[in-house]
Amino acid sequence: MTTLVRSTGRALPLLTHIRIPYRPKSSTISTEPISTANSNATISNKQLLYTTDESSPGSVFFLPHGTRVFNKLVTFMKHQQIKYGFDEVITPLLYKTKLWETSGHWQNYKEDMFKVEGNEQRDEVEHDHEHEHDHSHAQYGLKPMNCPGHCLIFSKLERSYSELPVRLSDFSSLHRNEASGALTGLTRVRRFHQDDGHIFCELSQIDKEISNTIKLIQDTYSIFGIDKVEFKLSTRPEKYMGELATWDAAEAALARVLDNMEGQAQWSVREGDGAFYGPKIDVLVTDAFGKQHQVGTVQLDFQLPARFELQYVGRDGSRDNRPIMVHRAVFGSLERFFAILLDHYQGKWPFWINPRQAVVIPVNEGNSEIAESIGQQLRGEIVGSLNTSAMSPLTGHNFWVDVDSRNSPVGARIKEAIQKGYSYIVMVGDKDVAKGTVAVRTRDSRKVADLKVEELYQTFVDLEKAFK
Amino acid sequence: MTTLVRSTGRALPLLTHIRIPYRPKSSTISTEPISTANSNATISNKQLLYTTDESSPGSVFFLPHGTRVFNKLVTFMKHQQIKYGFDEVITPLLYKTKLWETSGHWQNYKEDMFKVEGNEQRDEVEHDHEHEHDHSHAQYGLKPMNCPGHCLIFSKLERSYSELPVRLSDFSSLHRNEASGALTGLTRVRRFHQDDGHIFCELSQIDKEISNTIKLIQDTYSIFGIDKVEFKLSTRPEKYMGELATWDAAEAALARVLDNMEGQAQWSVREGDGAFYGPKIDVLVTDAFGKQHQVGTVQLDFQLPARFELQYVGRDGSRDNRPIMVHRAVFGSLERFFAILLDHYQGKWPFWINPRQAVVIPVNEGNSEIAESIGQQLRGEIVGSLNTSAMSPLTGHNFWVDVDSRNSPVGARIKEAIQKGYSYIVMVGDKDVAKGTVAVRTRDSRKVADLKVEELYQTFVDLEKAFK
Repeated sequence: MTTLVRSTGRALPLLTHIRIPYRPKSSTISTEPISTANSNATISNKQLLYTTDESSPGSVFFLPHGTRVFNKLVTFMKHQQIKYGFDEVITPLLYKTKLWETSGHWQNYKEDMFKVEGNEQRDEVEHDHEHEHDHSHAQYGLKPMNCPGHCLIFSKLERSYSELPVRLSDFSSLHRNEASGALTGLTRVRRFHQDDGHIFCELSQIDKEISNTIKLIQDTYSIFGIDKVEFKLSTRPEKYMGELATWDAAEAALARVLDNMEGQAQWSVREGDGAFYGPKIDVLVTDAFGKQHQVGTVQLDFQLPARFELQYVGRDGSRDNRPIMVHRAVFGSLERFFAILLDHYQGKWPFWINPRQAVVIPVNEGNSEIAESIGQQLRGEIVGSLNTSAMSPLTGHNFWVDVDSRNSPVGARIKEAIQKGYSYIVMVGDKDVAKGTVAVRTRDSRKVADLKVEELYQTFVDLEKAFK
Repeated sequence: MTTLVRSTGRALPLLTHIRIPYRPKSSTISTEPISTANSNATISNKQLLYTTDESSPGSVFFLPHGTRVFNKLVTFMKHQQIKYGFDEVITPLLYKTKLWETSGHWQNYKEDMFKVEGNEQRDEVEHDHEHEHDHSHAQYGLKPMNCPGHCLIFSKLERSYSELPVRLSDFSSLHRNEASGALTGLTRVRRFHQDDGHIFCELSQIDKEISNTIKLIQDTYSIFGIDKVEFKLSTRPEKYMGELATWDAAEAALARVLDNMEGQAQWSVREGDGAFYGPKIDVLVTDAFGKQHQVGTVQLDFQLPARFELQYVGRDGSRDNRPIMVHRAVFGSLERFFAILLDHYQGKWPFWINPRQAVVIPVNEGNSEIAESIGQQLRGEIVGSLNTSAMSPLTGHNFWVDVDSRNSPVGARIKEAIQKGYSYIVMVGDKDVAKGTVAVRTRDSRKVADLKVEELYQTFVDLEKAFK
């Protein structure tokens, strides 16, 4: 047991969802080990979070409840990135092989890319002879990374020093053609998503940008209670590109930022382990089973801006100024981070990210209607009243609240709700109706509190605000 | 001029964004006509909404301001779909050719699909002989539609009548291998996104489901002021699959729903024009240039559930009950809907969806600091105070507010702001500071109102709520 696992009481078995009473077919969901940690697959099967299929090895199907968690991670990061000055963009998945030659991926990464055959043999036959000779029909590569697309966006417009840093973010699907032996559940996949971002800036801006990135990484992991974090600075290798002075300045900036981290977090140097195109900081967290995962990353790149001939107009009007590029991700692969959280919480999601936040249980049939109406109140503004014709607003709370009006004993329904991982269990009986309150307990304690529905709703809002 | 164009005053030329003073390089952005309507390309270039590149023909690059609009359309629809009981899922983009044979796409749609070559020739050589004979390396198809993935999800779990209708939604990237001659800007692309949804239900549930879908379509278009909408019911063709009685009942249900539409909207029949697998309703809108676009669609499908052998447990415990599948989309292609909106608003986005909602202009240098602070207040909770270490909340308002503190005459900055399409122009001078108010005007009227910052912020909130 490592510090990664917070004390959240004893682990309870989690069963399937009430209102959608489907059960996994044992032949399809449970056969394939879908995570390095067996517990991942077990929790996912019980909570119906994700699945896989032989028709798409290495690609995850996020089921409705898994999608709720995934989307919340994305929304969380999009909101942080707006604050940190990132501009989100949406970029293509397919690029002609020529683009990958420009970026260098075709020379160095071709084996790990999916090759795509388009229509061009029909309408652009004249350009296709070279491909026919080498028996490859590939005209496109399916992107394994967003950087070349972001370089294209940078290059599309005439840029000035006064607009730097340009910070682009992207949540695209990425595909890497891992050998199928290497595929393991959520942590090693062929299709994944990154909370990807690229910063185009001047050398003098590195300090501020990297220190903001490290701060966002620390703040984010801390919200999830992930405190076993290590930072590794990889420095100039023997073969490198770029100016020695630039390398020295960049490495010094990275080391300075690491020295000044909040909480004096641990970091160490991997001497000579940087990529040939720039130094980097890898962020590693240790999971509940003692295994280290690389999550966040901050990578300087002196090469790609040169390959794409990126430039900006300087203070003196000169046009041949080349920006430095920073690749950075906080979660890294969202799929991998999801897997780490599964291990970390052991299925006991904190309220704010729980795909099953509350269940309302009417004590007897006579309370069913009021239970529905309470469920509706607790769901927030996005669902609103289903009976009004008002559209759901763009901004508003949305809590995942179910109502379990099945005709089975209250005790059995409560037990099942605990097993399913609902954060709150809200009971409504005749006495509660008379008092104008509901009887509320959590997943983890038998203690029952009588609350007005508005009070409970406010608790939900406060928990979400506090990321609890 | 059709009714599609709302009267929003005279069209003003729109220039580039202030705070990011880049200018399109004429050689890269403007050369390719990126929309059927020239005005699309012109507005996009001036507002820097999207671009294209020869490295990825038919795929759109959404620039930061275009991404803001795109994301708002997606958020809008996600929120409506939560209310309408849809469960969002995230499904793979690549599926083995065998899956496409099961769905029938490989037999009927192969020419329009991108073929993908994976790693399997390295680690699964023994299965690959048949492919080598036909000189194709394709092992995967890049998905042109989400339906097969959703059928797989339905089939993964044992389903009961009591959980129907199962409604799955998906905002995945889709790729269709259009011949490059057919590619035109945002309306005919190779990569696009749908607000896609599939409903698995019983025949008796069709009425309710279709009528909900039509209501959502009508309500949605009405928010955008798109009132030239036609509904076309396509009925049973000569060659069809499924029971005649099912067809008759389904067609009758669709006709009933159309008869009962709000506002007695127009609809007509396209006799015998349905697909062989089921009848459908197409929704067509007419753009500002009199051209009709298919946007929404509601399509019944008796075939795919059979091909995927979908079944659910009936009331009597029988296991061989087959659901009907409904394919439906409200926006249809988000890229195409974006293009229609560009034409429709002529760049004068209503406040709630405007990627440039307000600009704060300090009258003189002494007001710059307070202008920044006002900008910060108007941006809402997601940005919050950049100087606090608080994380941005999951739920909160986010308004796109810039501050233009450049050292040029106020009149020139106001003129530029109008040209750029900012909904509100917020001026701050010494007098305003003394009065504790700001001087506010809109893009469309010279009238200036003195408002407290909190009053203006409340106006923003109200406009967003009203989708104005």
